[in-house]
Amino acid sequence: MSPDGVVLAVDAGGSTTRALVLDASGEPLARAVAGPGNPTAVGVRAALAALHDAVCAALAEAGRAAAQVVSAVVASAGSDRLVSAEHLTGHLGLAPGVPFRRVPDLLAMYFSATDSDAGAGLIAGTGSVAARVGDGALERVVGGTGWLLGDGGSGFWIGRRVVRAVAAELDGTGAATSLTPAVLADLGLADDRRPREGRPFVLGELVDTAYGAEPVRLARLAPVCFAAAGAGDAVAAGVVAAAQDELAVLVRAVAGPGPLVVGGSVWRRGVEGSLAPGGALRGALAGRDVRPADDGLLGAAVLALRALGRPTLRLRAAAGPPARP
Amino acid sequence: MSPDGVVLAVDAGGSTTRALVLDASGEPLARAVAGPGNPTAVGVRAALAALHDAVCAALAEAGRAAAQVVSAVVASAGSDRLVSAEHLTGHLGLAPGVPFRRVPDLLAMYFSATDSDAGAGLIAGTGSVAARVGDGALERVVGGTGWLLGDGGSGFWIGRRVVRAVAAELDGTGAATSLTPAVLADLGLADDRRPREGRPFVLGELVDTAYGAEPVRLARLAPVCFAAAGAGDAVAAGVVAAAQDELAVLVRAVAGPGPLVVGGSVWRRGVEGSLAPGGALRGALAGRDVRPADDGLLGAAVLALRALGRPTLRLRAAAGPPARP
Repeated sequence: MSPDGVVLAVDAGGSTTRALVLDASGEPLARAVAGPGNPTAVGVRAALAALHDAVCAALAEAGRAAAQVVSAVVASAGSDRLVSAEHLTGHLGLAPGVPFRRVPDLLAMYFSATDSDAGAGLIAGTGSVAARVGDGALERVVGGTGWLLGDGGSGFWIGRRVVRAVAAELDGTGAATSLTPAVLADLGLADDRRPREGRPFVLGELVDTAYGAEPVRLARLAPVCFAAAGAGDAVAAGVVAAAQDELAVLVRAVAGPGPLVVGGSVWRRGVEGSLAPGGALRGALAGRDVRPADDGLLGAAVLALRALGRPTLRLRAAAGPPARP
Repeated sequence: MSPDGVVLAVDAGGSTTRALVLDASGEPLARAVAGPGNPTAVGVRAALAALHDAVCAALAEAGRAAAQVVSAVVASAGSDRLVSAEHLTGHLGLAPGVPFRRVPDLLAMYFSATDSDAGAGLIAGTGSVAARVGDGALERVVGGTGWLLGDGGSGFWIGRRVVRAVAAELDGTGAATSLTPAVLADLGLADDRRPREGRPFVLGELVDTAYGAEPVRLARLAPVCFAAAGAGDAVAAGVVAAAQDELAVLVRAVAGPGPLVVGGSVWRRGVEGSLAPGGALRGALAGRDVRPADDGLLGAAVLALRALGRPTLRLRAAAGPPARP
């Protein structure tokens, strides 16, 4: 192996695509960020472009070329059936035959927090998914079928309920909620409720705004919901409680030995701090060895170094404090 | 007015766009059908193309030109803020200054079944919406905010729940249901449950199929749900009951004097025949003067003839039997 050989880790998520370049000893050299890289969420073309942007930028920052990559792992929440691995390695300019692996983001996140080859993981981010891990691979996956078919309790799931609650208040079929002013402010819409064709004017604006962007972008409203629930809004609290019930179904479905690694933006920013006493999710977590995930990008780097037979303890130390047990 | 002047009625729906050309006495001359014409569902460009196709075909069939149109009404479920009326009349080749009106499809459907200037209407089709009518116009509209923000109890709403129930059975988080074989057959997918990356193979195929088309196309699964519910499937029956609860909210929100005109494909093909005794929707309909809607295209023609001050009784008689009271 060339002494200039580098290891490439990519985390292609529903919100951003991040690339990390390390030397073959696990020392981080450079990072870069690009747009959403989940083909299920934004389409194959946009996802490929984001991957390319992030990888090129990180390699340029490290002063290396794609031909110098000796091992690469791309972690993604999206379906890997939409693009072949061969196409992807060509797209990224990697040399043919270089160890390359695409892994579910859940596996990368799992290995960011534990070395155990058996356990389980749960992500609640833009989407939601859980899995049992055995022999270092995913044995059984539940959820993770995207915003339309599944992803119960995810950021999109919460955001969709939030915007529906706002629309229902505006047309008079739902209860008043502090989500309404908060969402309108977040979307930059003036709260003009004068009637237009039988509806409050702002409801038409909300409709146009919501359909003018990719549906999955509604996940941005999840933090608004957690804030409103924390401040005592009953509608928002109902959405948060229902989201936790959805996540409890996933947690129960991956019961078994070993740690349960939990992570994702929705988990960290909202669910973790608002577990309802007596709620289904708190019950599902009871007695489990719950470990907060570190960064899935770190887990992807761990897997890329493992493919070279490299120890990864040094990487963990270099990347920051270890995952909190 | 030229004796060759014709009246144009268009119904631009989420599934098809239909055009009807009549002479100025209300005698139907020709009809034509094109693809979905709801800009919220399929985008402005596709919706405009469908309108153009349907209108051109109907005029050609009638042996008339767009310049001979003396009054036109376009009924649509979509937001009319996406395209200006001026753009639309130009797009359709109508002469400047010809009486032209865009109306919500709900108003057209209302006037297909009653001459009362005051009452209420409910559509449960690909989407769902209800309104109070006063002075011949929509006074207050509830629902109708599209598949993402509202449309509770609609064909899409049902189809989404159906496909989520199938995904949940396939990954083991939901109950077994006869919806699964029915939906897989409807979508042309083989029921191959051998594992692939921790999931049944067919679940990956279902994900790819669902995200490979416009989300609103899931409305096609509503009839599958009604059939399964009718045959005693508990999961399907739960979806139908929940849909009726959603529609009951709309019906209650438009309470008041005058008839309640009800229609839409989901209403006709499923809801009407499966009203649960003691259910919220049956309760909401009790004591109302419920009238099944005739064709919204007919209502659009009624409104186009009204704009010329023409009586419309002849049109109703010519178009078929009157709406059943």
